Amino acid sequence: MKIAVLGTGMVGRAIAARLAELGNDVTVGTRDVAATLARTEPDGMGNPPFSAWAAAHPAVTPAAFADAAAEAELVISATSGAASLDALHAAGAGNLAGKVVLDIANPLDFSHGVPPTLFVKDTDSLGEQIQRTFPDARVVKTLNTMNAALMANPRQLADGDHTAFVSGNDSAAKKVATELLASLGHRDIIDLGDITTARGTEMLLSVWLRLFSALGTPNFNFKIVR
Amino acid sequence: MKIAVLGTGMVGRAIAARLAELGNDVTVGTRDVAATLARTEPDGMGNPPFSAWAAAHPAVTPAAFADAAAEAELVISATSGAASLDALHAAGAGNLAGKVVLDIANPLDFSHGVPPTLFVKDTDSLGEQIQRTFPDARVVKTLNTMNAALMANPRQLADGDHTAFVSGNDSAAKKVATELLASLGHRDIIDLGDITTARGTEMLLSVWLRLFSALGTPNFNFKIVR
Repeated sequence: MKIAVLGTGMVGRAIAARLAELGNDVTVGTRDVAATLARTEPDGMGNPPFSAWAAAHPAVTPAAFADAAAEAELVISATSGAASLDALHAAGAGNLAGKVVLDIANPLDFSHGVPPTLFVKDTDSLGEQIQRTFPDARVVKTLNTMNAALMANPRQLADGDHTAFVSGNDSAAKKVATELLASLGHRDIIDLGDITTARGTEMLLSVWLRLFSALGTPNFNFKIVR
Repeated sequence: MKIAVLGTGMVGRAIAARLAELGNDVTVGTRDVAATLARTEPDGMGNPPFSAWAAAHPAVTPAAFADAAAEAELVISATSGAASLDALHAAGAGNLAGKVVLDIANPLDFSHGVPPTLFVKDTDSLGEQIQRTFPDARVVKTLNTMNAALMANPRQLADGDHTAFVSGNDSAAKKVATELLASLGHRDIIDLGDITTARGTEMLLSVWLRLFSALGTPNFNFKIVR
């Protein structure tokens, strides 16, 4: 499948590399390709510069947001949550129309320190904001409840015996998302309902952040035992 | 152990019955014992009147909030979250001082319809409100992330292979709470940290409510796979 991953941080890199490894035609979208590739310092999170990652992943093509989205059959919104709407605007509403858009970001607000709070909570969600702003996109909220390495390679933990969620208004889009997740190795995928249920999975970040601190590792996930 | 369970709803009943069955000396606290026992209609949630439950559980003694708390070694705050502070005030700060107080309620706000929102979110929590209001109580937030039947009898689902959390400022109090949970059958208990981590477990309710709707049963729980 032709997939555009918007965002060059750890989440975008992890999911893009894995999707390319699985044989998809993957483009990573960024605001300014030349500027992104010109950076030689680690980013604010201490990750290696994108250029080093891109050199190690020649199958993934960097492109401007709009070029990446225009060519794609499916778009993954993988920037930081605070940057998602701007990146999607840059991708262009016309380039998103009719397409499945996976929103895998979280509405984290670092302005009050750490752990971050959420800039939308139980009366709205980032997933809903994206769906409202791009009504012709078929938005599915998913994967935001786990670390990037587990999003991309769930079988590395307990052979994948843990849960992913999908939220969205379009059943066919959720089916596409579920199949894509299954291709990554996700074994247990729960359809929570329409896009408003993204409020639930986004608010999960609050306990995720405390668990990260208490357990001392991001290599854990929620399993819904039932 | 002498335990006071404050609250006569489904949560209070489930936990009180189970603790009595395990040999604890359990009192259920209510505002007005005579009025509570005089009700003959099901409550607003369709539960049988408390008097019928009390008749079936003669080992559990109903008492006024203050009388229940005065006699207890450990107090469980099991009213609705919106009523918790009032019930604890009625129990009396002096009767809570020095004691382990388990807060197992959630700050649910039904004023905007269903699913409910939370009246405190990522900048505060009900657990913190209780600890601030009763600084001499040793508050532990726990059990609020699952259905009442699972709080009391975790082994009924997957032989207890799922997770409970504790949050609190007092390590010795968390040890008492953890031992009490283990006596109920909880096998995996994660200490998240101080009472501010209750923000995480309270915000978990948002996805719990969506899962309840999607799965069509409250008989599920979170397991932290790690």
